[in-house]
Amino acid sequence: MRIDAVDFYYLSMPEVLDIGDGSQDLLLVRLQAGPHVGWGECEAAPLVSIASLICPMSHSACKPVIASVLGQTLDTAEDIDRIGDLVRAESADVLQANHTLSGIDIAMWDLLGRRYEEPVYKLLGYERSEPRQPYASVLFGDTAQDTLDKARGIREKGYLAAKFGWGPYGKGSVDEDREQVEAAREGLGPDGIVLVDAGTIWGHDLAAAEARLSALQAVNATWLEEPFVSGALDAYHALAQQSGSVRIAGGEGSHNEDMARQMIDHGGIGFVQIDAGRIGGISPSRRVADYALERGVTYVNHTFTSHLALSASLQPFAGHPAGSICEYPVELKSLAWDMTKDHILSDANGQITIPDGPGLGLTPDLEAAKPYLLDVEIAVGGKVLYRTPELAW
Amino acid sequence: MRIDAVDFYYLSMPEVLDIGDGSQDLLLVRLQAGPHVGWGECEAAPLVSIASLICPMSHSACKPVIASVLGQTLDTAEDIDRIGDLVRAESADVLQANHTLSGIDIAMWDLLGRRYEEPVYKLLGYERSEPRQPYASVLFGDTAQDTLDKARGIREKGYLAAKFGWGPYGKGSVDEDREQVEAAREGLGPDGIVLVDAGTIWGHDLAAAEARLSALQAVNATWLEEPFVSGALDAYHALAQQSGSVRIAGGEGSHNEDMARQMIDHGGIGFVQIDAGRIGGISPSRRVADYALERGVTYVNHTFTSHLALSASLQPFAGHPAGSICEYPVELKSLAWDMTKDHILSDANGQITIPDGPGLGLTPDLEAAKPYLLDVEIAVGGKVLYRTPELAW
Repeated sequence: MRIDAVDFYYLSMPEVLDIGDGSQDLLLVRLQAGPHVGWGECEAAPLVSIASLICPMSHSACKPVIASVLGQTLDTAEDIDRIGDLVRAESADVLQANHTLSGIDIAMWDLLGRRYEEPVYKLLGYERSEPRQPYASVLFGDTAQDTLDKARGIREKGYLAAKFGWGPYGKGSVDEDREQVEAAREGLGPDGIVLVDAGTIWGHDLAAAEARLSALQAVNATWLEEPFVSGALDAYHALAQQSGSVRIAGGEGSHNEDMARQMIDHGGIGFVQIDAGRIGGISPSRRVADYALERGVTYVNHTFTSHLALSASLQPFAGHPAGSICEYPVELKSLAWDMTKDHILSDANGQITIPDGPGLGLTPDLEAAKPYLLDVEIAVGGKVLYRTPELAW
Repeated sequence: MRIDAVDFYYLSMPEVLDIGDGSQDLLLVRLQAGPHVGWGECEAAPLVSIASLICPMSHSACKPVIASVLGQTLDTAEDIDRIGDLVRAESADVLQANHTLSGIDIAMWDLLGRRYEEPVYKLLGYERSEPRQPYASVLFGDTAQDTLDKARGIREKGYLAAKFGWGPYGKGSVDEDREQVEAAREGLGPDGIVLVDAGTIWGHDLAAAEARLSALQAVNATWLEEPFVSGALDAYHALAQQSGSVRIAGGEGSHNEDMARQMIDHGGIGFVQIDAGRIGGISPSRRVADYALERGVTYVNHTFTSHLALSASLQPFAGHPAGSICEYPVELKSLAWDMTKDHILSDANGQITIPDGPGLGLTPDLEAAKPYLLDVEIAVGGKVLYRTPELAW
């Protein structure tokens, strides 16, 4: 069976705010092979990934991503690997290619799962999908009091774990940051799991991160996430040597498998966080999950968009030890929530599990999505290379 | 003085071939601040970088590159650093941003050079620009005989050094590859400098590269370039431990400073090859040049497009020891050659030097470029976000 069509849809909230909330737009991927369909999502700047899908060829290592996908045979997991390798080889000089490939890879897995009536995690070789402890992923409040209120609200909703990130954290004084993490601990209660995300705010500045360690240790934070940009391996490693009970987390910036491995091998991280919508899809995510498990590093999904993306990002480590934590965004804009008919919800124990339906186990709600769909048109040399296709199946 | 305009121009040969020749299209950047102009070039898929320049914001770390450039003060080298940091922070989630920033950074340096009537290398703090030994950079012939003929022609044109790359190399047998490098040596003569570029053909496959080492040692090749993809640091390091007189070269894939440093620190390379049109411009290239020099790694430009791009890529190491080699493409398509009025040519000793005029020392030939200019239009939600501007100054 061959891939007959690859279609990208740019959906957006009517207004996009200048805040660290990745659920304000999304890039939906529809893949068609014969009578079968698969859906995916790229965690990417939508217009840039559309351009990388359909741009004219520049030379043999700089081709549009679609050139390596359309018409390819897709019957097995090995086909997905082969197509991914082809994209990486032929579009090596298009940096956005891995973002773009991510949604396509996810859609290929979804398509195979629907075709063979198996959840993706079974196609990945996992016997079953273990329940995970979801951590509510939210932005820090503008003040410590706001964060305290948020944390209390999260605990009242039944979440044991919460991650606070971005917002003012790391931009003000060490004392202000201390008040923020103390507020998070107080609101979540003494038995809560407190996670803190610095959102790469300190770049390569080891001293700035070191200055925050004592407060994080005092509130018994489980991790400090992304103190630095992904490439700052030396700073990651140095911080990890002295962070004690607070482990260092990172990896969402990995847009290929090598980057994630380097953070494990040379960055000293305790948790590796992978976004299947960015690293190239479920396939490389799965390989990183195996690599991390062998080395005693805990694999965690990174997800900040729809539940379709959430399901995709949970599949690669579906069979890892039960009860480990997973990211669960709880401040989704309506677009990201409306994107799927069904949702991944906590059970009576406060845990979540990947849906057991075929493929990703969730289906996009096309009618609900339509109001968010943007008309895009790209023309080069008088020829229309992209025009938003009809959103239907 | 503030940046009033940033304009991108997509130029292309009428026909783009599926070969490893990066001179078939280019993305020209024009930057305007008050009465001053600066020109740059991105080594990028042009349409994708245009999209990253003007895409709608997705969230606070995923903004169009232009948002961090337009209206910014540009009076000093520190302003260029500040603008680059802003782009990296605010467009961190647009992978193509560093490609896009590259041309803008180059144009900022060119503008300051023109404004203060100084060559860029003087603004970078170099007293003078040292002559370099250009190596003719060409593709391997389809057969060893073709390569022999190419190598003889190169030597007859007065080049002492030549780099052969891509084409069939690494795709066939070890014996065929041996014949290719023997042909390069024979054609170039016993005193010629033979460089071999595998173009990442072996991915992460250490054994495939090891199998080619003895032939490279036998012909006394100076380097083996890009045996692996840029992220395969372990394979690079392992190969470098056994390559003896043949040094390992790499780094053109670096799209940020961290990647280049990692290849130096963890990859064991002897030559680091940086494309100022990809790594983020002249600014990060200069920092990598300093880093390499301190560690005994030889910095070399990577250039496969116009002489504007060549000048930009030579500036970051202008003051490094005289006589070291530099890349010099000699199979340019007419677009890349026609792009500038003047060219960087060998002197009586067969060496080249950065032109001494203000800025990059070269001016785009807008009349000659016009026939190559492509009309591009990008509309999102009924609003035109990009339309090819008039190519004029």
